Amino acid sequence: MTLADQPPAAALVFQTLLAHGPLTRAETGRRTGLSPGAVTKVVTPLLADGWIIELDEPAPRRATGRPATLIAVRGERARFIGVKATADQLIGVVTDLTARPLLTRRAALRSREVGTVVPAIARLVRRLRTAVDATALGGGSGGDGSIHSIGVTVAGDVDGSGGVVRYSPFLDWRQVPLARLLREAVGTPVVVENDVRALTVAEQWFGAGAGLSSFALVTVGAGIGCGLSVGGRVVSGAYGVSGEIGHLPLGGGDRVCGCGNTGCVEAVASTRAITEQAREATGDPGLTMAEAVRLAHGGDPAVRAVFARAGEALGLAIASVANLIGPERVIISGEGVASYDLFAEQVRTAFTAQAFGAAAACDLLLRPLPFEAWARGGAAVAAERLFAPTR
Amino acid sequence: MTLADQPPAAALVFQTLLAHGPLTRAETGRRTGLSPGAVTKVVTPLLADGWIIELDEPAPRRATGRPATLIAVRGERARFIGVKATADQLIGVVTDLTARPLLTRRAALRSREVGTVVPAIARLVRRLRTAVDATALGGGSGGDGSIHSIGVTVAGDVDGSGGVVRYSPFLDWRQVPLARLLREAVGTPVVVENDVRALTVAEQWFGAGAGLSSFALVTVGAGIGCGLSVGGRVVSGAYGVSGEIGHLPLGGGDRVCGCGNTGCVEAVASTRAITEQAREATGDPGLTMAEAVRLAHGGDPAVRAVFARAGEALGLAIASVANLIGPERVIISGEGVASYDLFAEQVRTAFTAQAFGAAAACDLLLRPLPFEAWARGGAAVAAERLFAPTR
Repeated sequence: MTLADQPPAAALVFQTLLAHGPLTRAETGRRTGLSPGAVTKVVTPLLADGWIIELDEPAPRRATGRPATLIAVRGERARFIGVKATADQLIGVVTDLTARPLLTRRAALRSREVGTVVPAIARLVRRLRTAVDATALGGGSGGDGSIHSIGVTVAGDVDGSGGVVRYSPFLDWRQVPLARLLREAVGTPVVVENDVRALTVAEQWFGAGAGLSSFALVTVGAGIGCGLSVGGRVVSGAYGVSGEIGHLPLGGGDRVCGCGNTGCVEAVASTRAITEQAREATGDPGLTMAEAVRLAHGGDPAVRAVFARAGEALGLAIASVANLIGPERVIISGEGVASYDLFAEQVRTAFTAQAFGAAAACDLLLRPLPFEAWARGGAAVAAERLFAPTR
Repeated sequence: MTLADQPPAAALVFQTLLAHGPLTRAETGRRTGLSPGAVTKVVTPLLADGWIIELDEPAPRRATGRPATLIAVRGERARFIGVKATADQLIGVVTDLTARPLLTRRAALRSREVGTVVPAIARLVRRLRTAVDATALGGGSGGDGSIHSIGVTVAGDVDGSGGVVRYSPFLDWRQVPLARLLREAVGTPVVVENDVRALTVAEQWFGAGAGLSSFALVTVGAGIGCGLSVGGRVVSGAYGVSGEIGHLPLGGGDRVCGCGNTGCVEAVASTRAITEQAREATGDPGLTMAEAVRLAHGGDPAVRAVFARAGEALGLAIASVANLIGPERVIISGEGVASYDLFAEQVRTAFTAQAFGAAAACDLLLRPLPFEAWARGGAAVAAERLFAPTR
């Protein structure tokens, strides 16, 4: 039995248990709108096939009646591999059904050619499989140790449903049918997704977005990205574009963006934009980002002003998201948050000034996430295809 | 039997028939993911109670097998009243379950006091009821001619779930429990919603947004509003704020908005902002909007530049929506579209320049809607509470 063969009510119960479980059967019925009979009808085969489990400890006893048994998702029922591909390395992770990382491995990438990267991902997948088999994880608890599917994430324009990397500037790839190529190499189903969207999927089901009606994940680094979750689904965009806060024209008119426009947020707030502006400010054409951070921490006013300007653009961009979508929370992450102290105040000030009315109540949450969390995003996307298939 | 008593699968079938019907039972199953048995189980009571109907003409006959019967929503099963309240008048409409207008009435408002407006709405509702009863509509087709519920829409900050107008600048209302007050006056359930959001609900189920995965409705007039529909639901915002494209800082730094910030789109593109700028451009402090439109149509370069600037800000705002949400379509409406020819080119140019990659493929649809369409929005919100209740 697979989850995908189950009726829609089963997916609803499973997703509710993922987001809010463990729950009693009665509470599951209340949250899903299903009758007690419908809950039983759905739960019985899910229990029988090990997708959910009855917990030993009962729910707190009510004044009258028997204690109710809690049911929960059984994470070890299925395993996934997530891989994040960057320009110079691969990060891989094996997770359970709830995207809990079981083990991780990294591998250097010597070239960005498709003919090099696909075999390298396949080798990393084999290493992860071997490592799982070599540990107690391999047999565990009625699972068969096998991998259900693999999720690979890359920065850029990705057609998730077709499994195609349409354009990735970092890898310099165009129209690469990565899901098909990798499946042929490893013999396991493969899904492909944009890295920020995948991280948003992981945060929605298993992270700082779990249980929220809506949230945004803003990533600050080489690019300025944003994933949006509305009504329990990550927004994809009818034409494959969404969350492009880096290309809102809020950065001022004097800097040209990589996309060709002037004034994009990315043109003042990406790592490269900050480095370039710090070079101009100091007159040192060889200045690195790390040195710019050091100078700013040391109090250099010109370099501090560069970070301040980045923070102001980011704050306006986050306010734009709040005014348009009204998310319950905005999670701020990405490698740029390592120097977030240099622009936190400007982000907050610009956000508060531009957020309209009650939108200013939106919670801004700083959340540093290691590269392994990005790989975990791939595993979360693979798992979501199983438990929350789109119609 | 009410629709709200039905299991979630019934709501799913009903909504699918609303958006895509008439359909065969087999196609209904395919679109909902329900088994043939589950479709039958859901459809039978809905047919018995008159919510859906079997059509006489069968679906096109396939090569083999019997012709399949089509099922569809039975619009006359329930009636709703929608009311739009502006600063100086009320517009009311009676609709069927599919928001089809059956008749409309208007009433002048002599004051904006709650104590005047609530009785005036109650009188308008009674006039609409009387008019329905006086026509063949009253008895029609097995319906009992009664009104299921009433939806009232106003511009401003509205708590739809609580039925409270938190703040309406046009009416100068704060914290008015309009749903409760009006229900006491008319004895029928009342829902209250922001007017732009209500119009978006009507467009989503019954208008230019029907069947789309996502769309935005931008309204240009006294304010610049925007409703967003994502995944079949109009976005509400976790804190009650969403779609505030009028307060994106894309209008340039020299004009102060009513919200206190500089650079808001509304500060250059609302009717009042255009009028004020045209007064400054002409040196005529008594100039009206109608006169500004006339001057621009006559070729006055200074006034044309005012409209051009409004169009540019609107185009950037629409591009921001496209870059963030990736809607399939943006519908442009509101009283401002009467003079849309004066800024259409700038809207298109700014949108195309700022839309990121494939987001530029988003369809921009100009759609003039009369005030009656806004009243219909109220009826659509009332109907949606019946057939698509939120959990």
